[in-house]
Amino acid sequence: MQQKEISKSVLKRLPVYLSYLKSQTDGPVNISATALATALNLGEVQVRKDLAMVSDGGRPKIGYNRINLIDDIEQFLGYDNTNDAVLIGGGGLGGALMGYTGFAEYGLNIVAAFDSNPELVGKTKGGKKIYPMSDLEQFCKDRKILMGIITVPAECAQEVCNILIECGILAIWNFAPAHLDVPAGILVQNENMATSLAVLSKHLSVQIGNIK
Amino acid sequence: MQQKEISKSVLKRLPVYLSYLKSQTDGPVNISATALATALNLGEVQVRKDLAMVSDGGRPKIGYNRINLIDDIEQFLGYDNTNDAVLIGGGGLGGALMGYTGFAEYGLNIVAAFDSNPELVGKTKGGKKIYPMSDLEQFCKDRKILMGIITVPAECAQEVCNILIECGILAIWNFAPAHLDVPAGILVQNENMATSLAVLSKHLSVQIGNIK
Repeated sequence: MQQKEISKSVLKRLPVYLSYLKSQTDGPVNISATALATALNLGEVQVRKDLAMVSDGGRPKIGYNRINLIDDIEQFLGYDNTNDAVLIGGGGLGGALMGYTGFAEYGLNIVAAFDSNPELVGKTKGGKKIYPMSDLEQFCKDRKILMGIITVPAECAQEVCNILIECGILAIWNFAPAHLDVPAGILVQNENMATSLAVLSKHLSVQIGNIK
Repeated sequence: MQQKEISKSVLKRLPVYLSYLKSQTDGPVNISATALATALNLGEVQVRKDLAMVSDGGRPKIGYNRINLIDDIEQFLGYDNTNDAVLIGGGGLGGALMGYTGFAEYGLNIVAAFDSNPELVGKTKGGKKIYPMSDLEQFCKDRKILMGIITVPAECAQEVCNILIECGILAIWNFAPAHLDVPAGILVQNENMATSLAVLSKHLSVQIGNIK
């Protein structure tokens, strides 16, 4: 299948469609863009365009076969191609992510973790082993790993990011609350929990201030 | 302190400043907006404005005292006021978050989890107990809980969201890959891991396609 250019905002909506479609096991066989837009409180034109981009199974007045549409979206998102990833920083949040099995559903397989802390090296979390940082490059090259997950403290994140890029990593999932500088061709997706908490916490303090 | 109107984008940068400032324990006593902007690869004017909004400790040609600036940002973000939160959905990712102790640093305290699955109810994860959903309303009202964390499957997320709002919750941290409808005054912060993985996975499939 030819790779089409697609915006990040479309990519962000597709998993939302997918989870809704998967939840409709007791629903009708076919679903229209209109019905999907209504259920998810999204614009109908937008949903129609998004679906047309990932599937050619839409029929006028009938819509999409639900099961086929799920397949098309999953194939488009590459969920059927499992991505092996290495995780750097096996303590705290990293350890929690290593133990989380739900990523498999989205085609992510954390194959191993790496850490500079000798107290963590050699341990196993969620069935995955923590190796020393010195093993990272060989491991990535042997296993052709292209995705790295950063769960180290913010002050080490750029250094770890540079190492990952040297190891051939092309996509980085960054959980450290730090801005990462990367060359063209490398994608960083930030998952900044500290930021989310700041937004929530500030909202609460404003709301509590309003109540008082 | 008077609550100022502040944009989400400023709130997203403040934790980045904070983590950098905290990492500079061996650095100079004072730090300027220019130095901070350079270190974090951000615009100088933006950093200057952000800092002026949260602290009045900046002095011309000297900058901010690092320790005082950390205090000012933390106070502004409400990290010194701990927010108690309930978590709904104690399996999988929810269980992982319950066991993660790093949230305390950002003023978040997950006090209890709730789940509709009788196999999870009564269990303890990360020192926190999982209660039945029927206990949620009384618990939130007794403890004056204002923040809820949603880690249930996408198809249950809106229902759980509605229940949380009935219980008096004002801020929702949503890990379910679903759009949530909420009334005015309620803030939803989405942490959509499926979306992040879709973006990363798509980037890889395009990059691999380019290489082949």
